[in-house]
Amino acid sequence: MDIAQERAALVDAVLERFFTLSKKRAEPLGQHYLHLWGLLERNTQGGKRFRPRMVMAAYCGLGGRDLDAAAYVGAAFELLHTALIVHDDVIDRDFVRRGIPNISGSYRDHAVTLGAPEEIAEHRGVSAAVIAGDLALFNSYRLLDRSGASAEVRDRLADVLDEAMFASAAGELIDVDFSIEPEMPLVDDILTMERLKTAVYSFETPLQAGAILAGASDKAVETLGDFGREIGIAYQVIDDVLGVFGEWGATGKTTIGDLREGKRTVMVAFASSTPAWARLGELIGKHDLDETEAEEARELLAVCGARAFAENLARDYAQRALSRLAEPHIPAALRDELHPVATEVLDRVK
Amino acid sequence: MDIAQERAALVDAVLERFFTLSKKRAEPLGQHYLHLWGLLERNTQGGKRFRPRMVMAAYCGLGGRDLDAAAYVGAAFELLHTALIVHDDVIDRDFVRRGIPNISGSYRDHAVTLGAPEEIAEHRGVSAAVIAGDLALFNSYRLLDRSGASAEVRDRLADVLDEAMFASAAGELIDVDFSIEPEMPLVDDILTMERLKTAVYSFETPLQAGAILAGASDKAVETLGDFGREIGIAYQVIDDVLGVFGEWGATGKTTIGDLREGKRTVMVAFASSTPAWARLGELIGKHDLDETEAEEARELLAVCGARAFAENLARDYAQRALSRLAEPHIPAALRDELHPVATEVLDRVK
Repeated sequence: MDIAQERAALVDAVLERFFTLSKKRAEPLGQHYLHLWGLLERNTQGGKRFRPRMVMAAYCGLGGRDLDAAAYVGAAFELLHTALIVHDDVIDRDFVRRGIPNISGSYRDHAVTLGAPEEIAEHRGVSAAVIAGDLALFNSYRLLDRSGASAEVRDRLADVLDEAMFASAAGELIDVDFSIEPEMPLVDDILTMERLKTAVYSFETPLQAGAILAGASDKAVETLGDFGREIGIAYQVIDDVLGVFGEWGATGKTTIGDLREGKRTVMVAFASSTPAWARLGELIGKHDLDETEAEEARELLAVCGARAFAENLARDYAQRALSRLAEPHIPAALRDELHPVATEVLDRVK
Repeated sequence: MDIAQERAALVDAVLERFFTLSKKRAEPLGQHYLHLWGLLERNTQGGKRFRPRMVMAAYCGLGGRDLDAAAYVGAAFELLHTALIVHDDVIDRDFVRRGIPNISGSYRDHAVTLGAPEEIAEHRGVSAAVIAGDLALFNSYRLLDRSGASAEVRDRLADVLDEAMFASAAGELIDVDFSIEPEMPLVDDILTMERLKTAVYSFETPLQAGAILAGASDKAVETLGDFGREIGIAYQVIDDVLGVFGEWGATGKTTIGDLREGKRTVMVAFASSTPAWARLGELIGKHDLDETEAEEARELLAVCGARAFAENLARDYAQRALSRLAEPHIPAALRDELHPVATEVLDRVK
């Protein structure tokens, strides 16, 4: 096992202990509840453990030695991530994630097997997902409690986790509004939404939490937040580019879904102010867009400069993030931990 | 102001401070987010502050003096209550609560005003309610953090709040299953569901939290939990009777909704095993039940003995709860606090 695998294994162990205990508690309350906990556990498995990786990188890079404590903090962010995606799927009325039925989908399919009509089965699925997301959300806090950190550090970690939740709720709300409002948002508004909805809880706050747990200076915590914000925005912008131009294997998503949905991205906002929009506007958001039309949309997004604009923007953000690491109060070990994070994002642009 | 009003005012002050701070944080993240926080605040206002009242009763009855600390713990339970009803409305697809648009309803109506089609407006409403419930849930924990209790007491309070959430999620899941499955649940299964979904977080755990904050013995905490469980079940059983036979003013609900919905209650489960069910089975769950048919259903529920069965059951539970207060380790002051809670429930039967 390399270092990354070792760290991920510690986080997995925390989550496994948490779910084992929770299932033990759930069992006397009924088989259905136990089943829901099992599904929630399955929903936390197989992920990239990206947020715990950020916690660990900051913690170890700043000299932290108690990897078990860091694993609890990392697991808290992972469980927050689970809660947010489970409820995001409720909001998007999605029953599948990465090709596999999500919690709503599993419950719906099970109800259909038992003979429930489609509408009732779907309702049952969504209800179960609302409950499961609540359990994950509430317990992300509890994992923080179990890190063994001092009361003072725990309070600061709780503030950071709170900030993550507070920001992502704001971002989710803006995203819902984007999907409903007819006007095209500005590029800056899209960047703000993506930062709030994803970058804060995936990059900024896990890095800050790792630094706080390591007893770092306020200045180091602040710089890590800045690094996280910039690299997190770069990541999201690239993610949207790959959502249209990527290969299925790289993102786990098809490259037609975002186009059909008419997802508001930096590329789309940029394109909407170019002459290409006369045609693009007809294609983007067309629910039954076929592969030929999708290819035409991709071509237009490239020709009008939207793709290059987004890629350059992401590169700028990633470069700015990298330059933060050069600041004198960032120790070499931390730089070594975070440099690959930034270059991975840059590599995705190529 | 009498003592009850004084205590409620302290809880209101905690919630007001919390929402003032949250709105201040929300403002830079956009007017829509600020608006959501305002709606969430409105959803916590005007309630009976029942759970804080339980916290305060146990705390003061056991000699607690720091009413501000108790107000924070009470407010934590109130915010948990808000989270649960906001998400319960999402699950039940309700857009109105007590005659007033709830969060989903407010957002839906606003979107309709702006010209959104009904389906999109409803979706926006439900999405906002998912997010708002998450915020309330997450922050119920945070209010606990701010009570100023010692780390040890805080950990025990967190365990109790966790228990409340854990149980109500189980109860909500069972309730969803009841509403979907064609078979009639047993009376005992209905009591279990109602205990888990409501009694634990409304009676058992707030009383235990008040006792823990007051530094009470484990035995007192346990007895309060027993009292809470029994009086909580009695309350729920009576609430269901009033949901069919009550007057609008007493419950804030119509007495036809539960019949139309076919809500699984102790009365309905009892009636299903009597000859009256031949006709009752046609009426209960009939979505367009009119007032004449509702009156016929009420008549049959009374004649077949279902109403009396439920009332007697509630009386038994309330009496058993009362007898707990006679146990020697319950101080007189605590008995004085809790006796009215039990008699209020009994008075509802009359």
